[in-house]
Amino acid sequence: MTAAQPLAKYAAWRRAGDFVFLSGVIAVDPARKLIVRGFDDIPSEAQALLGRTGEFSTDTKEGPILAQSWYVLNAIKATVESAGGQMGDVFKLVQYFRNLDHFPHYSRVRKLFFTGEPPASTVVEVSAMLPTPEILVEVEATAYLPLHPKA
Amino acid sequence: MTAAQPLAKYAAWRRAGDFVFLSGVIAVDPARKLIVRGFDDIPSEAQALLGRTGEFSTDTKEGPILAQSWYVLNAIKATVESAGGQMGDVFKLVQYFRNLDHFPHYSRVRKLFFTGEPPASTVVEVSAMLPTPEILVEVEATAYLPLHPKA
Amino acid sequence: MTAAQPLAKYAAWRRAGDFVFLSGVIAVDPARKLIVRGFDDIPSEAQALLGRTGEFSTDTKEGPILAQSWYVLNAIKATVESAGGQMGDVFKLVQYFRNLDHFPHYSRVRKLFFTGEPPASTVVEVSAMLPTPEILVEVEATAYLPLHPKA
Amino acid sequence: MTAAQPLAKYAAWRRAGDFVFLSGVIAVDPARKLIVRGFDDIPSEAQALLGRTGEFSTDTKEGPILAQSWYVLNAIKATVESAGGQMGDVFKLVQYFRNLDHFPHYSRVRKLFFTGEPPASTVVEVSAMLPTPEILVEVEATAYLPLHPKA
Amino acid sequence: MTAAQPLAKYAAWRRAGDFVFLSGVIAVDPARKLIVRGFDDIPSEAQALLGRTGEFSTDTKEGPILAQSWYVLNAIKATVESAGGQMGDVFKLVQYFRNLDHFPHYSRVRKLFFTGEPPASTVVEVSAMLPTPEILVEVEATAYLPLHPKA
Amino acid sequence: MTAAQPLAKYAAWRRAGDFVFLSGVIAVDPARKLIVRGFDDIPSEAQALLGRTGEFSTDTKEGPILAQSWYVLNAIKATVESAGGQMGDVFKLVQYFRNLDHFPHYSRVRKLFFTGEPPASTVVEVSAMLPTPEILVEVEATAYLPLHPKA
Amino acid sequence: MTAAQPLAKYAAWRRAGDFVFLSGVIAVDPARKLIVRGFDDIPSEAQALLGRTGEFSTDTKEGPILAQSWYVLNAIKATVESAGGQMGDVFKLVQYFRNLDHFPHYSRVRKLFFTGEPPASTVVEVSAMLPTPEILVEVEATAYLPLHPKA
Amino acid sequence: MTAAQPLAKYAAWRRAGDFVFLSGVIAVDPARKLIVRGFDDIPSEAQALLGRTGEFSTDTKEGPILAQSWYVLNAIKATVESAGGQMGDVFKLVQYFRNLDHFPHYSRVRKLFFTGEPPASTVVEVSAMLPTPEILVEVEATAYLPLHPKA
Amino acid sequence: MTAAQPLAKYAAWRRAGDFVFLSGVIAVDPARKLIVRGFDDIPSEAQALLGRTGEFSTDTKEGPILAQSWYVLNAIKATVESAGGQMGDVFKLVQYFRNLDHFPHYSRVRKLFFTGEPPASTVVEVSAMLPTPEILVEVEATAYLPLHPKA
Amino acid sequence: MTAAQPLAKYAAWRRAGDFVFLSGVIAVDPARKLIVRGFDDIPSEAQALLGRTGEFSTDTKEGPILAQSWYVLNAIKATVESAGGQMGDVFKLVQYFRNLDHFPHYSRVRKLFFTGEPPASTVVEVSAMLPTPEILVEVEATAYLPLHPKA
Amino acid sequence: MTAAQPLAKYAAWRRAGDFVFLSGVIAVDPARKLIVRGFDDIPSEAQALLGRTGEFSTDTKEGPILAQSWYVLNAIKATVESAGGQMGDVFKLVQYFRNLDHFPHYSRVRKLFFTGEPPASTVVEVSAMLPTPEILVEVEATAYLPLHPKA
Amino acid sequence: MTAAQPLAKYAAWRRAGDFVFLSGVIAVDPARKLIVRGFDDIPSEAQALLGRTGEFSTDTKEGPILAQSWYVLNAIKATVESAGGQMGDVFKLVQYFRNLDHFPHYSRVRKLFFTGEPPASTVVEVSAMLPTPEILVEVEATAYLPLHPKA
Repeated sequence: MTAAQPLAKYAAWRRAGDFVFLSGVIAVDPARKLIVRGFDDIPSEAQALLGRTGEFSTDTKEGPILAQSWYVLNAIKATVESAGGQMGDVFKLVQYFRNLDHFPHYSRVRKLFFTGEPPASTVVEVSAMLPTPEILVEVEATAYLPLHPKA
Repeated sequence: MTAAQPLAKYAAWRRAGDFVFLSGVIAVDPARKLIVRGFDDIPSEAQALLGRTGEFSTDTKEGPILAQSWYVLNAIKATVESAGGQMGDVFKLVQYFRNLDHFPHYSRVRKLFFTGEPPASTVVEVSAMLPTPEILVEVEATAYLPLHPKA
Repeated sequence: MTAAQPLAKYAAWRRAGDFVFLSGVIAVDPARKLIVRGFDDIPSEAQALLGRTGEFSTDTKEGPILAQSWYVLNAIKATVESAGGQMGDVFKLVQYFRNLDHFPHYSRVRKLFFTGEPPASTVVEVSAMLPTPEILVEVEATAYLPLHPKA
Repeated sequence: MTAAQPLAKYAAWRRAGDFVFLSGVIAVDPARKLIVRGFDDIPSEAQALLGRTGEFSTDTKEGPILAQSWYVLNAIKATVESAGGQMGDVFKLVQYFRNLDHFPHYSRVRKLFFTGEPPASTVVEVSAMLPTPEILVEVEATAYLPLHPKA
Repeated sequence: MTAAQPLAKYAAWRRAGDFVFLSGVIAVDPARKLIVRGFDDIPSEAQALLGRTGEFSTDTKEGPILAQSWYVLNAIKATVESAGGQMGDVFKLVQYFRNLDHFPHYSRVRKLFFTGEPPASTVVEVSAMLPTPEILVEVEATAYLPLHPKA
Repeated sequence: MTAAQPLAKYAAWRRAGDFVFLSGVIAVDPARKLIVRGFDDIPSEAQALLGRTGEFSTDTKEGPILAQSWYVLNAIKATVESAGGQMGDVFKLVQYFRNLDHFPHYSRVRKLFFTGEPPASTVVEVSAMLPTPEILVEVEATAYLPLHPKA
Repeated sequence: MTAAQPLAKYAAWRRAGDFVFLSGVIAVDPARKLIVRGFDDIPSEAQALLGRTGEFSTDTKEGPILAQSWYVLNAIKATVESAGGQMGDVFKLVQYFRNLDHFPHYSRVRKLFFTGEPPASTVVEVSAMLPTPEILVEVEATAYLPLHPKA
Repeated sequence: MTAAQPLAKYAAWRRAGDFVFLSGVIAVDPARKLIVRGFDDIPSEAQALLGRTGEFSTDTKEGPILAQSWYVLNAIKATVESAGGQMGDVFKLVQYFRNLDHFPHYSRVRKLFFTGEPPASTVVEVSAMLPTPEILVEVEATAYLPLHPKA
Repeated sequence: MTAAQPLAKYAAWRRAGDFVFLSGVIAVDPARKLIVRGFDDIPSEAQALLGRTGEFSTDTKEGPILAQSWYVLNAIKATVESAGGQMGDVFKLVQYFRNLDHFPHYSRVRKLFFTGEPPASTVVEVSAMLPTPEILVEVEATAYLPLHPKA
Repeated sequence: MTAAQPLAKYAAWRRAGDFVFLSGVIAVDPARKLIVRGFDDIPSEAQALLGRTGEFSTDTKEGPILAQSWYVLNAIKATVESAGGQMGDVFKLVQYFRNLDHFPHYSRVRKLFFTGEPPASTVVEVSAMLPTPEILVEVEATAYLPLHPKA
Repeated sequence: MTAAQPLAKYAAWRRAGDFVFLSGVIAVDPARKLIVRGFDDIPSEAQALLGRTGEFSTDTKEGPILAQSWYVLNAIKATVESAGGQMGDVFKLVQYFRNLDHFPHYSRVRKLFFTGEPPASTVVEVSAMLPTPEILVEVEATAYLPLHPKA
Repeated sequence: MTAAQPLAKYAAWRRAGDFVFLSGVIAVDPARKLIVRGFDDIPSEAQALLGRTGEFSTDTKEGPILAQSWYVLNAIKATVESAGGQMGDVFKLVQYFRNLDHFPHYSRVRKLFFTGEPPASTVVEVSAMLPTPEILVEVEATAYLPLHPKA
């Protein structure tokens, strides 16, 4: 897994002082130019972790938001690590949804990524995100990575 | 009045360096598990402050946004104070509305809370917020509280 | 061109430590109390820069988003300069659109303003912005302007 | 200020016995052939009376209904006076709105015009009024002006 | 032509003092239990008066509102006459439309019925009238018929 | 049962000459600050009168309009009586509905209140009434109560 | 009255063991190729039974569902009788409505047909039924008619 | 827990030969005349079984369908038991949803009730169910309970 | 062709006494995890049977419903055969459509599968079926397969 | 069958040089002032040709577009013949539909009229045609009829 | 009046053989870069010709379509004349409307321009035209102007 | 690139006298049975010509209309060439769009194909085109190719 890469001319992340600001991340795989649409678009370990049932109807309904939630948070994790930090350094998230009924699914996935102190969080439903209506969630993260951490 | 408490597994606020970042705040009372729906859900002093008319039709129309605006800003004030600061330390607000026709009402309430230098401000209308369509406004605040203020 | 001025009681920008936080900027000219609706509302140099075709139908369709994009980014540039910095110090943008089909037009204009390292960026579509439905884009910028830059 | 004049072939008012019946009044200025769209279309004294804030966003949102409410009630006042009476002789109002969320604003304006005994009142929201969707409120008034008032 | 008859248990008109108040009238023929849907449902003299073109498309578009306008005003005329007055005694009309784009057509017909002093008039668009969506206009008239007219 | 009381600053009724004009009445109980939502909000005698079936689904569907119809007409009756008249003096009704499919239910209730000569009547469907969408019907009544009735 | 006949190539009913399964029945008269649209399309005895008021507006509103309910249940009765049973042998109904506000009307009609032990019942609202949007209700019945009833 | 009771005049269940046919069941508590709207309307053991998180936003989103699913299936279980059988005798379900995105939640609850051989199943989304839009799911069950089971 | 397999935890069919009840069947191929979207998803013999024209526009319009109809009925046939019966033993169908304009196409396909006595049939249009909006038709079949057929 | 006649003041066809241009043709019978709504409005030979099934539901669904398609193309044929040509001289068609799902039905009918070289063809779906929403298809034809055909 | 000029890169008209083909014409004045919105945007002679009433409401409703119809047909006339012909040489029109209820108004204007043999005509309603939703009608004309007219 | 081929039974083009009339062309590749959905469906030279940015979000938004515009105009070019002419012989275009906001993109592509005298042009927005909603533009071209060009 590589860190999130920009879909247009913008930086995936920028450091400013002791802070690292990430761009909003969506479930688009820059390597495969692929929008994550369901369980089949994420690794099988992740599928198991998220509780894929194998039932066609259930997985078709739940798969898109579960897979996108995992993909987005995993991309944030990789991005923070590439900046020299770790997921626990993320202290704030702004989360945009296309349908807030998806929130409980996302919330369960997020707990898998934040096992320690949880971040501050803002959640709203917006009418659309880039690049297509298939995108269900976008997450903007901010991390605190002091240049000269205290001993 | 106690500080805002999270509705899901997230932090009501997080300090990072000299900054305090609050989660988005909505008008839900964590103690009473209650969504603020109108004047009857806030203290009577606040009702008077906001200009409750006692006319059923007028109060039914204006009450929800006025009461939620007061509740949200009051919760932010309590949160910042619990973090050791005060309302004047809040320098930036992002405000989400479900209907921007509510903005003038909110704006009048906000002036009651920011009597000194006003904060930087962003305002947009979104299609929904957590947890139900009764939520009319969500406010995300950031405060500057230096750990070692200059003498 | 003067720096962006607030449309309500809020600060156009606030410094906090080494950071400058701007309020969300929209294409309203505070001096002329005018909403920018198309090419005719921006300077002729800007019109040429944005590729006005002179064809009525084409310019009527593209003009609003191109002119607003230019106006907003130009106002951010003026604001940052009034705070003692320059456009390159802006490291993060949150961009709200009323219709994401406008993004490619905005994106072309943004490249004209950020010729060096691009900022981190978040993009969502919202249902409305202040003050009227004619507003197509709102941009919230953050700049890093250390008080004591390193030598 | 002249009395309301008809927009089509009808009477602005008709006397029948001791009663004066007014046609429904909307915020169209017959002299200027102008639909009242906001604060700028009414006299500055009226603007001040209605609490114009000078904040662009707030005034853009509240201005239309406040200005139309003032204009309509002021036209009714002028009409009744031209018929030999005064506002206090109006004993009944039927009020049509395009959006009942405007009612509290109208209600505040109405109190400025009826300082004595208030009239009987009916309020409904309709889907449209003449001549265009910009019309937000229409008021039909009836006054009691006995031909031979008791000594 | 007989006077308007009620469609439910209500009076077609009621005298109170010197006034005659008519119920709202719609284009339903009580004798034929028929909703007036177009030119074919009114007398041929009326068709000619209203300018039936004989062109299928034009008549299909304009016929319904023209025929209903004529029918309703003609029924009001018959009703007032049955109460001992005449059309000129009608001094006030409240007119409800399902689509205000029909107003100019109605207005032309109304001029044919009020050749003297026109009545006071209120016009609004409502979402529906009884008994079916085919009803395009309803008119409530009030007449002044003094019991002891002055000599 | 007390007479209808105004929900805003207006008169429940006004006398003008021999006439009593009532404000539009809706099913809001001023004493209890309660919107009448179904059978449970009216007296049990009234419930029986209106034919409550005791079947949950049927009563849930029919209850709101039946209960509001009864409440409104009963309030009109009380108001007219407080003005020194009786229901039979009401000679004209304007009735506003949110959904005209409710008319037959209302019509059955109205017959219970007008056992003698029925009033003149106008019926239209509007898009909303004060104070909330739960209001299904509003009725404006006019009564004839001569100050000096003939011997 | 003849038993229900299929509108397409299917059986009006089929026996399987001790059970008789009816196809879904709608208010279409196979003999007259007529969709039942109101009171005028059913026998006058049935009209009286269902409480036709003779008031145009009331009957226009209530007539369609009352007449269709009667027609459908009467057709089921005739079908079961043609299969050698009677209405009391019907032990289960699945009822589809286009608008569940029609349920109380249907429910009253159903009680006229099931005077003994009522059937098990399922009720849902669907978006459409064959053949046109005028169809308001469809009922699927199942009867128990043992081939060898016990003595 | 008592067996499901009818909401109108119909049987909660009917035996026909070796079969027991249940009426469609919804989440309305006949004893309390209460529509089940969320976790608070079902027993605490059931809440725990269904995984109530205690997070306000999550429980507000998931609670309604989880609680209704449990209530409906539990009522079916009680009904079948009152008819002398058990849940395993239910061999067929028809399930109606108002929003099929709720299916995965329902499906997880159903597995708790059918631990042996699962029933045959049909699932569709309908536009509404009785008595109000708060009803999210309705289930019609059929059980096989031979009168003379084989030894 | 194998018999229909469940998409979630339910039985494709269940025998109860002399009856075989099938779950609702949709056009999803369990082996290929594929939703049938058009002619290309069914065997070429079936395409020919259904009258594929080879014209791109016609086949794109008609293909989805024709292919799904064939697939569903063929799956029912295979399921009944796997239960030891044949298509002629199916005596009852409940058919759910997403758009009843598709009925004539389905009806033509159904005749190919039922050459003898046709089944009893119920047809309604629902708002959605599992798992996605691409599903156009769902069919629930019941067959009579006596365990001890008469000689 | 007579040639198409104009519904307003326009020519059914005009010759210009070697070309004959027809007005757009819809399924309105000028002789009978009748909109063709289904099979019953066209000759019985045409009904048979188009495959009327005699099944009420199927014919109700398919009849309107099949009958209108036949009527329109037949009127074009008659018009071209009245101009001295034949259907084979029509070399170009522009076809407007209200719902492109009707195209396959129209396409089958068109093949019956063009047995030789097919015309050039343009097909689009528009939002409405004259005179009412019942019109499903309009066809504009152009024919080549040289004044001096080559020997 | 000058001939129509293109709004983008296209020809206002092109000659091909004996024919002159015009581009679709809309009511945009190329000289003034102005969309024709009502009576005020056309010459006063034209206003009189079209029957401007001077009544604000009537003229506001009818003005846009009447003024655009006149402007478009007048531009066609000027264009054909600039090509050496006259209005009578136009033998075919394709007319696009945004709302076909405007047709009778347009039809009356068209008769003023075609006093001789009327052209062949096609009329459809489309969802939009260039450049903005204010455009109500677009007309495409074709003229026959032989290069070598017969003597 | 081969010339456009019909998608149903119609001619891609027909010659009539000195004219060549093309059928409406859409972006469907007859060889590959493929609807052109974006840049990936056209040759790489064309992608470069149209300014593919390589930015995922931008290309996803602009790609569909740019690629379809190129494909359609290129197919027209090939068709005219196969008829013995060249793009410059096309003198008239009728262009149908599903969304007129796409016009500026199309207009830029069209200029690449018409470097000399531009054609006469008509542009409207329609509600749909064949075969699916993915089709964004359809173009009908006419060319002038005299059989005996002048020397």
